[in-house]
Amino acid sequence: MEFTKGHGTGNDFVILPDPDGALDLTPRLVAALCDRRRGIGGDGVLRVVRAAKHPEGVALAGEAEWFMDYWNSDGSYAEMCGNGARVFVRYLLDSGLAVPSGAGLPVATRAGLVRARVEGEEDIAIEMPHPRLGDPAAAGLGGLALTGTAVDVGNPHLVCALPAGVELAALDLTRAPDVDPAVFPAGVNVEFTAPGGPLAGTDGHVLMRVYERGSAETLSCGTGACAVAAVALRDADRDAGTIAVDVPGGRLTVTLTADSCWLAGPAVLIATGTLPLPLPFPTPRDLAL
Amino acid sequence: MEFTKGHGTGNDFVILPDPDGALDLTPRLVAALCDRRRGIGGDGVLRVVRAAKHPEGVALAGEAEWFMDYWNSDGSYAEMCGNGARVFVRYLLDSGLAVPSGAGLPVATRAGLVRARVEGEEDIAIEMPHPRLGDPAAAGLGGLALTGTAVDVGNPHLVCALPAGVELAALDLTRAPDVDPAVFPAGVNVEFTAPGGPLAGTDGHVLMRVYERGSAETLSCGTGACAVAAVALRDADRDAGTIAVDVPGGRLTVTLTADSCWLAGPAVLIATGTLPLPLPFPTPRDLAL
Repeated sequence: MEFTKGHGTGNDFVILPDPDGALDLTPRLVAALCDRRRGIGGDGVLRVVRAAKHPEGVALAGEAEWFMDYWNSDGSYAEMCGNGARVFVRYLLDSGLAVPSGAGLPVATRAGLVRARVEGEEDIAIEMPHPRLGDPAAAGLGGLALTGTAVDVGNPHLVCALPAGVELAALDLTRAPDVDPAVFPAGVNVEFTAPGGPLAGTDGHVLMRVYERGSAETLSCGTGACAVAAVALRDADRDAGTIAVDVPGGRLTVTLTADSCWLAGPAVLIATGTLPLPLPFPTPRDLAL
Repeated sequence: MEFTKGHGTGNDFVILPDPDGALDLTPRLVAALCDRRRGIGGDGVLRVVRAAKHPEGVALAGEAEWFMDYWNSDGSYAEMCGNGARVFVRYLLDSGLAVPSGAGLPVATRAGLVRARVEGEEDIAIEMPHPRLGDPAAAGLGGLALTGTAVDVGNPHLVCALPAGVELAALDLTRAPDVDPAVFPAGVNVEFTAPGGPLAGTDGHVLMRVYERGSAETLSCGTGACAVAAVALRDADRDAGTIAVDVPGGRLTVTLTADSCWLAGPAVLIATGTLPLPLPFPTPRDLAL
């Protein structure tokens, strides 16, 4: 089985080319591939299938040639993943499966058609759900009590600006922040932000760290960056503009207008290889203590 | 650049074939390769060089054909790594660079000549430093106060049996255990143990989790398993025998005599591939927050 590993600002993926949908991808295989020590390692799997050859892509086959079959590292499905889509498009372009055009590149996903485009030499941009600003809400972290802004980007976020004197790098995010489960019954991704320095070509610059619900601190979160950008524009009394959002894995750039939201940033292919099927892992001796 | 990824009970390594020592391996390149999200990911790098072609191996070239050039994931050197050596030998055998013989396979390392042998169908065994039992010492974890046994396996260990009623799986090892820095001035690896069930072909069976000094909980620790086996034999009033040690990454088997210690277990090659040089990572946009 061939694979490529790629990442977008530190969200990493095992990419499986499977144009004809011939691969019997199972939750167990996905979890084994994404195992960081006994597999290839990744936040998820991106299977590259022709839309016409995938039952969930065939309805969009007239509009997009390729379907992004995205799986989470635990073997569950996900509808969309902003950084995953950016890496998927990098793979299509670098492997010659698609050619960029002025009109952009449509990709079929479980969330419907997603538009992509190339920006500059290394960035891939993806159109994202438009962030909807919500009410203020509280978050606690260690001894710190914060009030943030709830933002819906298809999934729930809480964007919390740090008070002056509290350093972003000093936060202990090895534990989940405290939030009110009555306000966020499905959990919430919590972003902590601090102002970045002046940056030409943008309307704002924000530093962010994120604790993803049900997970941990991660190096990047595409929808989180969109949420942070929407709050930054509101705080600047603007309803459109471009915000640079620095996450631990790199720099994302979010461009918002009244009705669109584009997420841009680097997407990199790391290595290409082969692995045997059936997989040599987990080994028969792997035990659960 | 070609690479293979392999693991031994969950200690994983990026293996770089470089028979003639031509590769300019730098700490920065090692750290980039071992980066789990923006590189291949691994606990370390194993460069496969002919002993005659490596300045630190040439003195042993008459006794061993291959030198294990082992690097830690942070780009520092290490003298030896038991699970790393097992994976190194698996690579030599599977790639046809060495042939197993009854006398075993000598490998040159920075710690001198290390003997290896194949056991059964899938296990690779390595001769390890003989564990030296030391004094009792205290360790704290959460509200739990334990007294363990210090063991020197070339590096310092503290083996702590859990009291009845405390479950090994329930320990919170996201934080370092408390130890007395006056007793362990260079830090210590702390093993927590519980009895395993009866297991044919062994003289004892122990379940273990380990917190590695300066690091975190890991899936496996070769020297830690040797330390645990030495304590298990002492507790059984034996001075030789075979102990199965189950770590979260699999099963290791330690065979001790009065003057030898062999560590055996599975060693698996996961995938083989290529990556471009210069590396596409870290990207120019990677930022340190």
